Amino acid sequence: MLVVQKYGGTSVGTLERIEEVAKRVSKAKADGNDVIVVVSAMSGETNKLISYAEHFSKNPQPREMDMLLSSGERVTSSLLAIALNSMGFRSVAMSGRQAGIKTDKFHTKARIESIDRLCIEKELNGGNIVIVAGFQGVTELDEVSTLGRGGSDLSAVAIAGALEADLCEIYTDVDGVYTTDPRIEPKAKKLEKISYDEMLELASLGAKVLQTRSVEMAKKLNVNLVTRSSFNNNEGTLITKEENIMEQPLVSGIALDKNQARVTLRGVTDKPGIAAEIFRKLANDNINVDMIIQNVGHDGTTNLGFTVPENELEITKSSMSEINASRTVEYDSDIVKVSIVGVGMKSHSGVACTAFDTLSKDGINLEMISTSEIKISMVIASKYGELAVRALHAAYELDK
Amino acid sequence: MLVVQKYGGTSVGTLERIEEVAKRVSKAKADGNDVIVVVSAMSGETNKLISYAEHFSKNPQPREMDMLLSSGERVTSSLLAIALNSMGFRSVAMSGRQAGIKTDKFHTKARIESIDRLCIEKELNGGNIVIVAGFQGVTELDEVSTLGRGGSDLSAVAIAGALEADLCEIYTDVDGVYTTDPRIEPKAKKLEKISYDEMLELASLGAKVLQTRSVEMAKKLNVNLVTRSSFNNNEGTLITKEENIMEQPLVSGIALDKNQARVTLRGVTDKPGIAAEIFRKLANDNINVDMIIQNVGHDGTTNLGFTVPENELEITKSSMSEINASRTVEYDSDIVKVSIVGVGMKSHSGVACTAFDTLSKDGINLEMISTSEIKISMVIASKYGELAVRALHAAYELDK
Repeated sequence: MLVVQKYGGTSVGTLERIEEVAKRVSKAKADGNDVIVVVSAMSGETNKLISYAEHFSKNPQPREMDMLLSSGERVTSSLLAIALNSMGFRSVAMSGRQAGIKTDKFHTKARIESIDRLCIEKELNGGNIVIVAGFQGVTELDEVSTLGRGGSDLSAVAIAGALEADLCEIYTDVDGVYTTDPRIEPKAKKLEKISYDEMLELASLGAKVLQTRSVEMAKKLNVNLVTRSSFNNNEGTLITKEENIMEQPLVSGIALDKNQARVTLRGVTDKPGIAAEIFRKLANDNINVDMIIQNVGHDGTTNLGFTVPENELEITKSSMSEINASRTVEYDSDIVKVSIVGVGMKSHSGVACTAFDTLSKDGINLEMISTSEIKISMVIASKYGELAVRALHAAYELDK
Repeated sequence: MLVVQKYGGTSVGTLERIEEVAKRVSKAKADGNDVIVVVSAMSGETNKLISYAEHFSKNPQPREMDMLLSSGERVTSSLLAIALNSMGFRSVAMSGRQAGIKTDKFHTKARIESIDRLCIEKELNGGNIVIVAGFQGVTELDEVSTLGRGGSDLSAVAIAGALEADLCEIYTDVDGVYTTDPRIEPKAKKLEKISYDEMLELASLGAKVLQTRSVEMAKKLNVNLVTRSSFNNNEGTLITKEENIMEQPLVSGIALDKNQARVTLRGVTDKPGIAAEIFRKLANDNINVDMIIQNVGHDGTTNLGFTVPENELEITKSSMSEINASRTVEYDSDIVKVSIVGVGMKSHSGVACTAFDTLSKDGINLEMISTSEIKISMVIASKYGELAVRALHAAYELDK
């Protein structure tokens, strides 16, 4: 097998941790696999370098930031290669450039454009474990670029895709993907498998194991992704194609997103173009609108509701103040969004019904509802958030 | 003017120090110069990284060490570029590779083979101050290489040579080159100018301002080198071609080398090949033999004396024990070497005579003497070392 393993900052946070990682990597090699490892900077390093840069400038040049920030991963990759070599496992460290990773020119948030698979293959064919500095590549002009937060995951997935690896393991300090946040529902179970689309919904809903970008790329490149912990030997969660999951559960997980605020416009003139004007304004101000609901109105006006991230509420207010499209605008940040995610919904009716029933039994009022093929999201009052998660978790028998 | 400025580890040891360096660099630019800056890693960083590597291995792979160690200079160069940009001075950071520095393949002690001057010129022509990460380049295989201790000085001198800079300023925490160590003779004067050859003699004799390799390269590439302090605005010392120094002083400086031990072989068979055998053995054991003196002997034998660095005395002893070339071998580490350096000696007689007179007046016995065109070295008992330096300093009127 060809395996890509990616270790995040806490997994390589100390020299002792790097030693543990070296043991895990060497085991994969000793088991007969070809192994590529992608590493992050030691935890705290990137933030330290950012604070250094901010000492000099609130807006440091993105190009210089990339040269600065890329150094952390280079250090970790060299150290891991040295550790492996000293254990008798031949190993080479490669920078993003040496690994053939080309990106676009948007420094500090570059996107990978291509990977020259020959660069890594050459070292693998020489019998080496290949350690790649994550989070980085080079632009067409041969300038160092970085991929933004979570960039090392992207490096790993992109490399796994380019080299058609059998598996891409993302190691963090979390065991895998759970049916819901175990801090809210201790009965939450770790999922063995989950589809890309479900993971995407859960990731965007605040399950922080993997970033949306990485899952999107894994889906696009058809990479079998496993998220697991580097602090124990538990099996993780496999994120894969829907077809690879034999028994599709009705519901895979329940997510709670507390970073939500609701905006309600009452008495919006009910004519074409008004909604477009409102949401164009919000888009121009870089506000991430999530749910949008428009009710049929009377007397030629309508009520329009939408949600935005709570931390974007202030800018939303100033944005809305420049638009004169409604009688009144109301803001409510005392809400949360509870979501039910599962590919099984596609082929089963009654999933939504169960949710509504469950919440009404606990006297929880639904303030907004929005559905997609594999997701039902409901906005409710903040105080009911955890209760709703536990009730839904039980209703769909996720603790079984 | 095109100026290369190189700042060592203590000069960029903290964010505040980097800010000071940025001010100095910006002044050179504001004065109308084109400016290239070469930086070392922040002081302590390289040693920290070495200790990290040694946690894993006593013999880390040189290739991986170079990837590891090169990161420190990259950090400093990015930070300085960010600082300068925030002050309104356009600036780009370049790695050794980006600056076009090609080296041979000997990792951790690579030698610069060529510099593609177009790389830096392109950025200079764009109006930028160019900040180059010192101490590093890339091999023919495009692997990161480092130049060994003092490597950033070499980067600076090589760049100054390749781009035909008018001046190469090496900033440290020392004001320049002194007529002798001011801790021994407080009347020591800073030299305004000194020739490459004199500096080479002084450097190899333990005046630690500049390493021999850098001065040799400056001589070869005809680079005007200035060594000065980044902690004050004092003028430094210009190291240049002999022809550029109008008034050649008789003697430029007095050096004291305490790291010396003497080996004396008595009763060496006086036939061809014996000395060769001895020094071949020492060379094979990587022992740096300095002065060698052979006295005419009698009864077909001779006495052979030489000096080695004191910290190589133990290995010298074991080396000599494997050779059976003399009746007895004596070791004496209780000696020092005092040297008088000056290009004026070439055209003036009597310099040596003054030295011998001066020392004899203080009752100091000369145990070995060796001379070159611009240097007289004398081995004396350790206890007289400082006294001899002060006496010679006065005798050649270096305090005037």
